[in-house]
Amino acid sequence: MRTLLCFGLLLFLAQSCLAQKPHPCRSPPLLSGSLSVSARDGQDWSFAKYRYDAFGQRIRLWEFGKHDNKSFHLNLLFLFRENVVYSINMRNKTCQKNPLQTAFHPLKIPRNASLLAQVVLGGSSGPGEGLLVNTWTGVVPETQGKYIATVTEFGCIPVSTIYYTEEMGWVVTSYFNAVTGIEDPNQLNPPSFCTHAQTEETTLNFFSGFF
Amino acid sequence: MRTLLCFGLLLFLAQSCLAQKPHPCRSPPLLSGSLSVSARDGQDWSFAKYRYDAFGQRIRLWEFGKHDNKSFHLNLLFLFRENVVYSINMRNKTCQKNPLQTAFHPLKIPRNASLLAQVVLGGSSGPGEGLLVNTWTGVVPETQGKYIATVTEFGCIPVSTIYYTEEMGWVVTSYFNAVTGIEDPNQLNPPSFCTHAQTEETTLNFFSGFF
Repeated sequence: MRTLLCFGLLLFLAQSCLAQKPHPCRSPPLLSGSLSVSARDGQDWSFAKYRYDAFGQRIRLWEFGKHDNKSFHLNLLFLFRENVVYSINMRNKTCQKNPLQTAFHPLKIPRNASLLAQVVLGGSSGPGEGLLVNTWTGVVPETQGKYIATVTEFGCIPVSTIYYTEEMGWVVTSYFNAVTGIEDPNQLNPPSFCTHAQTEETTLNFFSGFF
Repeated sequence: MRTLLCFGLLLFLAQSCLAQKPHPCRSPPLLSGSLSVSARDGQDWSFAKYRYDAFGQRIRLWEFGKHDNKSFHLNLLFLFRENVVYSINMRNKTCQKNPLQTAFHPLKIPRNASLLAQVVLGGSSGPGEGLLVNTWTGVVPETQGKYIATVTEFGCIPVSTIYYTEEMGWVVTSYFNAVTGIEDPNQLNPPSFCTHAQTEETTLNFFSGFF
């Protein structure tokens, strides 16, 4: 009986230890927050507020930045299920509707990703001094681009991604001020003045939203 | 009497609110941790464990990385008060001693730095999901290089610095796994086999420790 108990305890301890190893994870399906993207060694950059809805496969971005030394502002709504992207001008109440080429990719660490390291950003000597994160690496099958993605150990909240392709070089994205949920779900629907927008010919992809 | 009480309460509240505005800060004088540095759009990079002693103005680095497509390992002890840097080879028990040009700069946000933003890295919806940090910017008087430095709101622990000069381009440093204090103070003294090392002619600066 005692041997059985010991065996059970050992099994439980072993399972607990295994459970503590970082595992690929999926971010919350509803997220609101901000991000910054930079490429070409800081020459191209943008800041954006985002709303992310993995249930409805929709992303909204309010964005400003610099590309080829020219500044830009964008207000975009990606509806991946309908394969369209709306470029919205709230001031003029106008709307441009383009076909969207990119498939929806939920925010997650793919199962075949390799763990690079688990680290504490900042420090661990006092409360509020650090953030336990896991950094994963892998290859995007479609593009053969390499990625390094960092997410929080608790909650799988995105912290940063580094993405490398020969075409674009290094693209660094930092995520901040995330909250789980979407305060105003209307932000993920096209505004009323977009209803009758005709679909343009030019197909856009998700990255054309950034640079 | 009641008016006085109300006035006192208002003053206290106002002071509390003011106290919550981020202020330039100084990191703990004894820190142990790790850092990564990258430059030239990721072509040059290094990882290092460090020990930092602002009291004794000493820094120890154990480092490996890549510079000009060649990998390197370094084991360095900077003694800023004595203006020397030791390059230590533990395997061969040999030591090289060079004059050190750079003055000691404590880890701190200078008083004249401008606050760029206070953000939560990751998210704030759950415990362990985010880290409240302050990002500051300014110019280094000696080099006229621009910096963007991020430290934790609680504890002033370094999280990242971005440093730009025309000569070096962007140099990005990330700090992680910091603990306050130094577990083994011997690591900040030259090993015994360094005692009789003759000082070389070539003067080094702190950055030559990285690339």
